[in-house]
Amino acid sequence: MIEKDNRNLKLVVLKFGGTSVADVPQIKKIALKIKKEINLGNKVIVVVSAMAGVTNNLIDLVKSTSQTPLYSEYDVVLSTGEQVTSALLAIALDNLNIKARSWLGWQVPIISDKSHGKAIIEEIKTEQISKFLEKNDVAIISGFQGVSQENRITTLGRGGSDTSAVAISAAFSAERCDIYTDVDGVYTTDPRIVKSAKKLDIITYEEMLELASQGAKVLQTRSVALAMKYDVKLRVLSSFEELPGTSIIKEGKNMEKSEISGIAHSLNEAKVTLSGVPDQPGQAADIFGALAKHSINVDMIVQSSSINYEATDITFTIPETDLIRGESIIKKIQKKIGFKKFITDTNVVKISVVGNAMRTQSGIAKTMFETLANNQINIHVISTSEIKISVLISSDYYELAMRSLHTAFGLDV
Amino acid sequence: MIEKDNRNLKLVVLKFGGTSVADVPQIKKIALKIKKEINLGNKVIVVVSAMAGVTNNLIDLVKSTSQTPLYSEYDVVLSTGEQVTSALLAIALDNLNIKARSWLGWQVPIISDKSHGKAIIEEIKTEQISKFLEKNDVAIISGFQGVSQENRITTLGRGGSDTSAVAISAAFSAERCDIYTDVDGVYTTDPRIVKSAKKLDIITYEEMLELASQGAKVLQTRSVALAMKYDVKLRVLSSFEELPGTSIIKEGKNMEKSEISGIAHSLNEAKVTLSGVPDQPGQAADIFGALAKHSINVDMIVQSSSINYEATDITFTIPETDLIRGESIIKKIQKKIGFKKFITDTNVVKISVVGNAMRTQSGIAKTMFETLANNQINIHVISTSEIKISVLISSDYYELAMRSLHTAFGLDV
Repeated sequence: MIEKDNRNLKLVVLKFGGTSVADVPQIKKIALKIKKEINLGNKVIVVVSAMAGVTNNLIDLVKSTSQTPLYSEYDVVLSTGEQVTSALLAIALDNLNIKARSWLGWQVPIISDKSHGKAIIEEIKTEQISKFLEKNDVAIISGFQGVSQENRITTLGRGGSDTSAVAISAAFSAERCDIYTDVDGVYTTDPRIVKSAKKLDIITYEEMLELASQGAKVLQTRSVALAMKYDVKLRVLSSFEELPGTSIIKEGKNMEKSEISGIAHSLNEAKVTLSGVPDQPGQAADIFGALAKHSINVDMIVQSSSINYEATDITFTIPETDLIRGESIIKKIQKKIGFKKFITDTNVVKISVVGNAMRTQSGIAKTMFETLANNQINIHVISTSEIKISVLISSDYYELAMRSLHTAFGLDV
Repeated sequence: MIEKDNRNLKLVVLKFGGTSVADVPQIKKIALKIKKEINLGNKVIVVVSAMAGVTNNLIDLVKSTSQTPLYSEYDVVLSTGEQVTSALLAIALDNLNIKARSWLGWQVPIISDKSHGKAIIEEIKTEQISKFLEKNDVAIISGFQGVSQENRITTLGRGGSDTSAVAISAAFSAERCDIYTDVDGVYTTDPRIVKSAKKLDIITYEEMLELASQGAKVLQTRSVALAMKYDVKLRVLSSFEELPGTSIIKEGKNMEKSEISGIAHSLNEAKVTLSGVPDQPGQAADIFGALAKHSINVDMIVQSSSINYEATDITFTIPETDLIRGESIIKKIQKKIGFKKFITDTNVVKISVVGNAMRTQSGIAKTMFETLANNQINIHVISTSEIKISVLISSDYYELAMRSLHTAFGLDV
């Protein structure tokens, strides 16, 4: 639960990702961008990521020390990336005569639970920074990190700096939260795959949430969910170009005319089929309970209807990166469940069509399936939500699928 | 002031410098060394430096951002070096099933004043770590860092990890404090210059203090002074070899027979001569007061006696690294002082002969000056203390001077 600060500070939150603070020249450019906000009369809270590449280097260092590190110590190592960036940015701002200082997670403090490596923010104390901003211009907060009640450093998991920025925006009731990144906004689909991809000027929280969780890497899913919950005015824009970016908003009138907002894809998928599962109550609960207990997210699930009421096949997808762990978990309960074969396929991609319009317009599923059929693309699994349809297909065809769906839904224009 | 902990923990403090924790394989070796201490039934506090080279890289990063950085932020950057090492060592110890955790300066806490970049430790709170060690084996404290009363990270200045280790040993009333480094002890002189240099088994605090401040780089001067003040049992030993090292002790009977304990040299010296200084009272106070105000340490001072009571020359040495700053400070008060010329010489080396025996034995100065004269080495400046004689000579002859003095004082045998 994040308590909102009631004081009347007019402030904006600016978040800069790894490529935006890739090196010292880039950090100096960011300082100039922040100076513009100050010149507009705003107080600014900046949230920074580690410099590009630093977090991966730190992870390598930890992994070369132990393949099974203490996560409480892993967090101590990883948090140094953002610590360095925030201090360097403070130095760069001081060079421009802007009154700024760095705030580490434990100094704010940003209090989290103690699930090291993937901590959840519980509370952000606003008092000290609010007081600091009365007489100063910029508070630079190290993203991705917090401190537990035990006074130990925690990290929020990969991409956690977006979550930091949104949670801070909510806590300080910021006017807006600008996420600066290496793309100039949210696109109808991945422009590296579909040349005719278009930048969206606006998108709803719900649509962004589906796009983010379906593999669009612009914003971390958690951060979008948090923005929606606390009604944070979010924008995604480029650190490198002066362009308006994409605003993420609540659903409004002007949203109705668009059919769908985007097409996402996820390569990190593994399809698992358990064949010959005896058709008894409680089997699904046992299987998915075991995976959930080990924090493996199961996504699409299909159970073939058992014709003779004896045995059935259960198919589901999990992240490819969790497949080895998932296999060992499931095989431990093979006797109890009684399935015959454990079959996997990692040559699969999930393609999702996302759009608020699905709530009001029919025929979207039909268009999707017809388009894939016309291109001879076989569908393995289908899943749907209120504003999204996802299909699992062979990864051989995913570029073709994305291009043809982009055209079919009129997004090329 | 460091308050001693009164609880009855039997513990040792082990400090590992940068080369001792140069990389992950080295950190794993250190973990095995710590395990041996645990197996002896001791509780251990480990103090670590940054991995070799890391601190210099971080300084470069700061300096490329600003030549005049905010030192409060400089400290935030630099402290990450020790932060990473302490966490990696905790992970390596956990791999050996040893119960350990990292403690950052602010977590202990090690409270310092707020002179960022060269902070002084004011207090070390022992309560939390003492409680931790009741149920665990090893507390790993990040060296070189503290936290100010304002809750900001401070650093103690270069080599500050030695000071951290000694201050922690005093605060916890440790049985002993072992400083692990890349040499196997304290030598009669620099073995890279004088092949016949001998390792000392014991040396007194006072002698070590003179050797350290005269350029022997084994231990930071501050740390030796602190050890003397709090009577910390100090040892210097190699991380790479199983050798007894050098014990640093209070003066005892067995010290009397040795003439001198070592010969030190310092290359970081600049000789400054102010010529034609009007011979009036208060001139020296003005000159050295101005330098002290800017934290420039003046070492040797010679004032030529003025024959006609009109003008005199004042010669002194300062660290070569402070020469540019020193020159601008002195030139600002040139009018007030009224000296004619500012003459500098950086082609100088200070050679010091150090020995407790000087208190009781005469003739040491005579031997020193005769030896240098026999080798045609001209002496620029002389200074003495109770247990040391230093001379400033041309840097062309410093290896020759060290070798011949080493022989003359019977240290080759």
